[in-house]
Amino acid sequence: MRYGLVGANGRMGMEIQTAMLEAGHTLVYALDMNHEETTGIPEVIIDFSLPLVLEITFQKVKAFNVPVIIGTTGFDIAQLQAIKTMAAKYPVLQSYSFSVGVQLMLECVEFLKKKTEGWDVEISETHHRFKKDKPSGTALMIRNQLGKDAPIASHRLGNVTGEHTISFGALGEVLSVKHAALSRRAFADGVVLASQFIISKKPGLYTFKDVLSQQN
Amino acid sequence: MRYGLVGANGRMGMEIQTAMLEAGHTLVYALDMNHEETTGIPEVIIDFSLPLVLEITFQKVKAFNVPVIIGTTGFDIAQLQAIKTMAAKYPVLQSYSFSVGVQLMLECVEFLKKKTEGWDVEISETHHRFKKDKPSGTALMIRNQLGKDAPIASHRLGNVTGEHTISFGALGEVLSVKHAALSRRAFADGVVLASQFIISKKPGLYTFKDVLSQQN
Amino acid sequence: MRYGLVGANGRMGMEIQTAMLEAGHTLVYALDMNHEETTGIPEVIIDFSLPLVLEITFQKVKAFNVPVIIGTTGFDIAQLQAIKTMAAKYPVLQSYSFSVGVQLMLECVEFLKKKTEGWDVEISETHHRFKKDKPSGTALMIRNQLGKDAPIASHRLGNVTGEHTISFGALGEVLSVKHAALSRRAFADGVVLASQFIISKKPGLYTFKDVLSQQN
Amino acid sequence: MRYGLVGANGRMGMEIQTAMLEAGHTLVYALDMNHEETTGIPEVIIDFSLPLVLEITFQKVKAFNVPVIIGTTGFDIAQLQAIKTMAAKYPVLQSYSFSVGVQLMLECVEFLKKKTEGWDVEISETHHRFKKDKPSGTALMIRNQLGKDAPIASHRLGNVTGEHTISFGALGEVLSVKHAALSRRAFADGVVLASQFIISKKPGLYTFKDVLSQQN
Repeated sequence: MRYGLVGANGRMGMEIQTAMLEAGHTLVYALDMNHEETTGIPEVIIDFSLPLVLEITFQKVKAFNVPVIIGTTGFDIAQLQAIKTMAAKYPVLQSYSFSVGVQLMLECVEFLKKKTEGWDVEISETHHRFKKDKPSGTALMIRNQLGKDAPIASHRLGNVTGEHTISFGALGEVLSVKHAALSRRAFADGVVLASQFIISKKPGLYTFKDVLSQQN
Repeated sequence: MRYGLVGANGRMGMEIQTAMLEAGHTLVYALDMNHEETTGIPEVIIDFSLPLVLEITFQKVKAFNVPVIIGTTGFDIAQLQAIKTMAAKYPVLQSYSFSVGVQLMLECVEFLKKKTEGWDVEISETHHRFKKDKPSGTALMIRNQLGKDAPIASHRLGNVTGEHTISFGALGEVLSVKHAALSRRAFADGVVLASQFIISKKPGLYTFKDVLSQQN
Repeated sequence: MRYGLVGANGRMGMEIQTAMLEAGHTLVYALDMNHEETTGIPEVIIDFSLPLVLEITFQKVKAFNVPVIIGTTGFDIAQLQAIKTMAAKYPVLQSYSFSVGVQLMLECVEFLKKKTEGWDVEISETHHRFKKDKPSGTALMIRNQLGKDAPIASHRLGNVTGEHTISFGALGEVLSVKHAALSRRAFADGVVLASQFIISKKPGLYTFKDVLSQQN
Repeated sequence: MRYGLVGANGRMGMEIQTAMLEAGHTLVYALDMNHEETTGIPEVIIDFSLPLVLEITFQKVKAFNVPVIIGTTGFDIAQLQAIKTMAAKYPVLQSYSFSVGVQLMLECVEFLKKKTEGWDVEISETHHRFKKDKPSGTALMIRNQLGKDAPIASHRLGNVTGEHTISFGALGEVLSVKHAALSRRAFADGVVLASQFIISKKPGLYTFKDVLSQQN
């Protein structure tokens, strides 16, 4: 497919370019703070930039009349409302995590929590020393999915990209699910899947979970 | 419930007695090589003994007219046929693993294999140094569930009861499910669940997977 | 060797009997709350019982004129002083952990802490749900060995015997040392080593670390 | 310090530039296939390039009259001989791994192997799917350090940079040392240490192990 990318030269932008190229897709529109380049008509716009760019992104979505994927985070309430309004007319996919593995982990948690009544549950996460928040947002997502106030142990070690483990323990056994993000590539691969998903959809607000639910 | 136990003083038999007692169940019939004791009418017979005892176990099942759980392994074809024949008239639950965690792991594998096309898969298992077979039967069950010729790495270390890990790897992430059996207690707890399951069933051949499918 | 065991029928006592037997040693004196049996002259007395038994143990040590190994914990100050006094005349080995692996782990920590200046350090421990204290005593020993106020994450899962991990993280790598106790057998094997160590020693107070320092 | 870098724009070259910059060192000489830039007199030359460049590197070492660090691999016997000859007149540091953690792991192995007679030993390594060789060179280094024909299990998963685990197992416990390389940064940090080490040394052939032995 032909795609447009807002925030094309950011860290995630570069990673998305690599992943989309390997999947056979062509960048035909790129927008950055000081650069705009159009070499074709995109079939989808992908935005991994800053909240203040949202309005510009939406102008482009309207101009090209295409679906949009939003990976930017940190929107205020008015912007989140604008995203909903936009979704009434265009297919909009917004998510806080484009990692396939994290979504699969959450689905395992959903399955396992029903089958492990009376088991102990412990969540553990390890991230790089620069990460300020404890626990991580993904650890909170896991606990939220679990629907139970499980303890979360947070480790800050060197430059670890991100690891999450949830362990269920009974008297005779322990069952654990562990996710390790190796690099931003994990998230870029998720954006590729999201692109392939959204281009054939009707207007509406979608999440990354919808992308995976449709597969198989 | 009141239960009978064939192989009552074996290693698994002792463990089952402890787990059943904690769950509030009463041993009313015990059979061992040199000992038989009846203090009541059992509602179910549990057999963790040797293949050659099967016929005796079936006589007791008929005498008490109750369901039977078979955890004994190593039956020959004629015996497996006898089990099927028995299942036409009595509820019979036979399984090679009564670990809840192993079954849950297999169900996670079933779910994940559909969602991870193109990912690498590796299976790893660690057992005590006395274990002769490589890879373990459970590792083979995992590979069978996966439906794919994944590599299995087998480790033999000290007195490890049994650990199995299946890892799915994409370019940016690794997702793993790990099961650690801490002791035979894992399996005894499964037998308790199986007992509670089988006593209300119609005649037929059941497995441990059926026990868990019914829960939620 | 021929050995005596105070607390012979306790959980650790039973485990020690098994390990000593496999190592070719013979129990010739056994003492329990309601039982005393002498079938020979011991070359060493091993005490895994209760603090209040200490005086009786010391009477036997004097009577047989042999070294003593003390694995009992919870002594008061007067008792600890009595142990020191005893050590002036007899070889006395006292330790809070007879696990070879835990000692080796502590020695790795001692080595690594000098080589990892500026690295992050995190300690993690997992024990059974019945363990009341958080963090574990061994985790505190690891932190003490480290000489640095490292975070300790404590997990309580099912019936896990005891696992401790210490991880050192730099920007590009993580180095971890992990110890998993599989059963009380770990500690019983340490008692065997301690017995072989103490029988040839001069009077004095020894620890389990001395046992391992002497090997190789 | 001021340093020169041969293979400056390669993957490792870029990583070294980042690490050296953060450590306060200045790149004053850069050589690549199609580019040479001199902005000062280096105090050390670092070579992470290709074997065929070795001769040119040595010319520069002579011209600047400085020590050299060689991280390039794949030399033939004549080239290895040339390195030795060079070391008679210049401080030369050559190593197959500049990871501090891998060296520390090897030193733990050296220590532990003497203390774990009769224990089982298993080595395990995980790398990205593109890695052709099995087992990894580092796994072979670990086995070599162990001095024993321990089994090595190799896993190939997604894009894992590199993980190595060595586990020692007795009947009651398992002790493991695990190293995870998070990125080439691990190796770049080692090069920084090596630079600081080599600039004050007399002529001779040094390895990365010498760098770490000197610390503390």
